[in-house]
Parts: sequence; C-alpha cells; structure tokens
Amino acid sequence: MRVTILGTGLIGASIGMGLRAAGWTVEGWDPDADALAQATELGAIERARESGTVPGGGETDVLILAGPPLAVVETLEDLDTDALTIDVAGVKTPVVEAAHGKRFVGTHPMAGRETTGPQAASPALFRGAAWVVVTDGATEADLSLVESMVHALGARTIRMNAAEHDVAVAAISHLPQVMAGALLLEAAAETQALDLAAGSFRDLTRVAASDPGMWKELLASNRTQLRAAIDGVTSRLAALSDALEAADDAAVTSFLDDARALRRALAPTVAAVRVALADRPGELARVGHALEATQVDVRDLQLRHAPHGGGGVLTLVVRPGEAEPLRHALEEEGLVLAD
Amino acid sequence: MRVTILGTGLIGASIGMGLRAAGWTVEGWDPDADALAQATELGAIERARESGTVPGGGETDVLILAGPPLAVVETLEDLDTDALTIDVAGVKTPVVEAAHGKRFVGTHPMAGRETTGPQAASPALFRGAAWVVVTDGATEADLSLVESMVHALGARTIRMNAAEHDVAVAAISHLPQVMAGALLLEAAAETQALDLAAGSFRDLTRVAASDPGMWKELLASNRTQLRAAIDGVTSRLAALSDALEAADDAAVTSFLDDARALRRALAPTVAAVRVALADRPGELARVGHALEATQVDVRDLQLRHAPHGGGGVLTLVVRPGEAEPLRHALEEEGLVLAD
Repeated sequence: MRVTILGTGLIGASIGMGLRAAGWTVEGWDPDADALAQATELGAIERARESGTVPGGGETDVLILAGPPLAVVETLEDLDTDALTIDVAGVKTPVVEAAHGKRFVGTHPMAGRETTGPQAASPALFRGAAWVVVTDGATEADLSLVESMVHALGARTIRMNAAEHDVAVAAISHLPQVMAGALLLEAAAETQALDLAAGSFRDLTRVAASDPGMWKELLASNRTQLRAAIDGVTSRLAALSDALEAADDAAVTSFLDDARALRRALAPTVAAVRVALADRPGELARVGHALEATQVDVRDLQLRHAPHGGGGVLTLVVRPGEAEPLRHALEEEGLVLAD
Repeated sequence: MRVTILGTGLIGASIGMGLRAAGWTVEGWDPDADALAQATELGAIERARESGTVPGGGETDVLILAGPPLAVVETLEDLDTDALTIDVAGVKTPVVEAAHGKRFVGTHPMAGRETTGPQAASPALFRGAAWVVVTDGATEADLSLVESMVHALGARTIRMNAAEHDVAVAAISHLPQVMAGALLLEAAAETQALDLAAGSFRDLTRVAASDPGMWKELLASNRTQLRAAIDGVTSRLAALSDALEAADDAAVTSFLDDARALRRALAPTVAAVRVALADRPGELARVGHALEATQVDVRDLQLRHAPHGGGGVLTLVVRPGEAEPLRHALEEEGLVLAD
C-alpha cells in the first residue's frame, strides 16, 4: 500500500516509520523544511513530496493529514482527491463537519509524548495504544482499510462517532491537562516549597510540560465539552470539601473508595518479560539486538543474578502490546525466556 | 545509636532497614502481630519489643512514632519518656500541639508508595527524597540529631514550622490526591470509554489507588488547609473555562505557559549512570551485585551494544541521590563507567 503523510512531526513521522517497517510505501511533506529533512533522514518517509499539493488516488492509496485540528479543517475545505483521506487530530467534530461529502475517515491515536517533532518519533509509539476510528460519513470498506493500517502500527482500534469521541477526550485528555496546570499554579501560589513535591505531584503535573501552542488549539476546538467536564470536576471537589468540613466520614470514604475501584479497573499498563541469561560472552548483546529489532520502550528493569554463577534473570518491563514481539525477538536471538 | 520504632508498616520498616544498614541498633513494635513478624523476618528490626510500652531514655536514643496522625496524637498525650521522640505522620499541626512541652521533633518524609505494609519496605525508599523537620518546640541539639538520622537514610532535610508544612502538603500532596479521585469519578460518569485513557490520565490518577483509610485520616486532619487549596484550584479552573468560552486566547496561553514554566523548574527526578560492559563472562552478574548492594530503584534502562563486538553500554536511570552510591558500587565490582 502507498501512503502520503502531510505533516511529519512526532505523530506523522512515527506513523511513517511504523508503516515502512510493515512494508508500506511512504512519502511525506511538511511546511517546516527542517522537520521534513529530519523525517527523511530518520527514515520516517522514503522520499519527500515536492510540495504540499494533494496527491490523487492514482498516486497514493491513503492520504494522512497529520497536522493539528485547524490545519486539518483548512486542508479539508479545499480537498479534491479520490484517495482515502484520514486525519489524526485530537478533536473530531469540527474535522468530520469540514469533511462532509468527501471520502474521509477521522481517527485519533491515543498516544503521545511531552516532546514534539520527528526527532522524538518512534515506530513503537502506537504499540498497544488505543486508536479511535470515527464512523461519521465513512463507508465500511474505508473503515476496514484504516483499521488494517492502524493494526499494522500495533495499535488497537475503537469505533466511535465524533460526538462520543469529543466527550471522551474532554474527560480523559483535555481535563487532565488543565487540572495539571491549575494544580501547578495553585501550589506555586500557596507554598515556596515546591521542591518538597514527591511522586504524586510530579505524576499529576507531568503533562503540563507539553507544547502550549498545540494544547491551546485542542482546548479551544473542544471547549464546549471541556467546559462541561470542568464544571463536573469542580462540583465534585466542592462536594468533597463540604464533606470534609461537615466531618461526613461516609461521604469522604465513598469518594476515596469509588475512585480507587475505578483506578484499579483500568487495564494494566505494563507487562513483564523475563530472560534467563547464561554466563557466556555476547549474552547481553543478544538482548540489545532484540531491543533494537523491536524498538520496544523499556519502562523498568530488574536484574537478579543466579547465586551459583554469573548468569541470572533479567526482567524487562514493557507495554502490554510490546511483550509478545519482544519475546519473539529474544527467542530469535537464541535467548531462553524464564516465564 | 539506638532507635525504637513503634509502627513497622511501610515507613517504619523502611526506616529500620536503612538505619540498620547505617549501623544503628533498631528495635520495633507494631499492634499488628503479622506486620511485626514480617518486619522482623525482613530484617527491618533486630528484635521485636515485647509490648507497645514506651522505652525510657536509658533504653533508647530515639523513639520513632511511625503510625498515622491520630495514633501519634493519642500516644503523645500519654507520653512520658526522656528519649527524643519523633513522628513521621503527614500532618504536623495537631501533632506538635499534642507534643507541647515534651522532648519532641515532628518530621515528614516526602516519599511513599501506593502499596502499604512492611513487605513493600526498602532501605532505599527515602534516598534523594525531601524530609521535613519541624522546628516548633524543638531544641537545636534535637533538630541536629534528627537531621543526622535522616541523612543516614539518604534523604535531604528541610526545616519548616508546622503551619508552613501543612499549607505545603495541602497543595502538593493532599490536593493532588483529591483531584485524582475527582478526575476518575468525572471521567467514569461522562464516558464509557475509560479504556481509551492514555499516559496522562493514568499518570494523573495513579495515586487514587492508595489506601483510602490512610487518606481519609490525612485529609480530615488537614481539612482547613485542604479546603483552601480546593477553593483555589477550582477558581483557577473556572477562570480558564470562562477564558475558553470568551475565546480569550491571551488568558489561555498565559495559563498554559505559566504552568509549563513551573513544571520545567521542578528539579530533575532522575539521573543516568552509564556502564561500559565488556564482552566477558560474569559482566552482567557484576551489575547485578552492584544493584543488590546499593538496593537502588532502577527506573529505566537503555542498552546499546557496541557495533564491533558483544559488549556495550548499559544506561541505568535512577533517582539523583542514588547515582553516586551506584557508581561507586559498580566501580567496586570492577566495572568501567562510561561517563
């Protein structure tokens, strides 16, 4: 299959790397000449498209608009191609409205990083991640084509309509972003001792380091849903504050218990792969080869050496979707799995 | 030095392990016989104290009350000992009030885990962490003694009064906890698609998995400060919501920019230690020995094998305070550092 990616930043370049690894033919273009050159150099695209012109269906099978929502809407308004066009922006209602009557499928990969640009790209970015495929105005054949592309990138697909998507991301993505910001601003105003902050504060505020320009556009594009989510969460906080003042133990306990139950029900975020390492030269290099070949993102490591010799068990903690490819690659290297 | 720890859960047992490693004599007791037996078995304490009776100054140098705030307050009210008594509870005003006129120093280690109990204890729990030492009613000699104990555990000390501490933890610990809960409850009410949740949602809500019983007591003990913090953060969220509705780009941008600047100013949470691994038997076991000897908590791993042979460079990502001890231990094992 042939794909053309317009926008070779973090998401576009990661898609290019992943699809090329899956055997697709990938060309790309970016209005930023540096981003385009980097994406080409990193192998995210095979060749740079001469200009930002939109290819026809005879030139490409899938056209991916990998820019932010406003740029996608602008491109869609002038779009005239028979190639299947998709986008990957974080808000879907304005996008599917702009695509009305065209051959288009809106999508949204639920993966990202605090960093931006092709330098941060990885073909493993989407592995195990959820990827929303929006049904509004799309044919079953085009939805299936998009799903096969997403599966080639190692992600799992979830079909929704645009309105459902925008309510969901308001609650699980846009609301966390503004809560992180509000928490930082409030804490900085109330205490000089921000460096006391332990794990929970750092975890809650990590996303606030993300690109403000990108977020401003996302928040504005989804403001109706986000405002409803902000109302909801501030009401819940006010009710808890009242319960604390009234020493209403039952209400406080129920808040904490319900939240804990919800958190525990979230799917596990990591999986462990255990390798039995023999005490022989090159053993570690074999692990290195397998990690390079699969490009998995190692989240944690434990090493227990055997009491009787130089070997041991190396535990690599990775995302659930990455465990099987890594196991396979380790075995390909002649290593023995310990589980 | 001799220390007696009343309460051998996660914090008490971790203190015991760390102080024993630093050469202190450690005894302990816990009202939960299982927790006491586990702490003894894990070597967190050298011996279990026969009962929960408070030792005199002739028996111990430092008495550590390692229970939750209400239990500490209760113990302090009846306390009659000439040993230096300290506590490690997460709220300080009620504790220092209860200790009025006694030989006492309130403290608070800013470290913890989602899990509880001595099984989760580690002598490395506090390494590199901040540990508040409360000045209210304490002599300089006793403050110094406490600080030497904290430094033996690898933590850094910060002196504050109880009121400053309680304002700070309301903003950087108690507020994040309730925001995580409110976010989970709101998201679950608004969308069926919680499994779409990507990294930021998981990061923001991780603390909601913590023990509700412990948190109920902490939140209630600090409710005045926490209610002020909740008011502050909900006002900030409401103001942002208004700015989005009014399409006030400058206000939204300033919110995001200010939050990002604050997040970036937080001290780095990790440090990298690079080891050049030779292609010879036992090399990995040497790394394993060093990790065991230092008990550092490896947060991430990167492995790059050398193109010319079986060796490579192993990058171990650890907490800043753990980097130097780990480097030293790796060199002791005959390994070569790559930085």
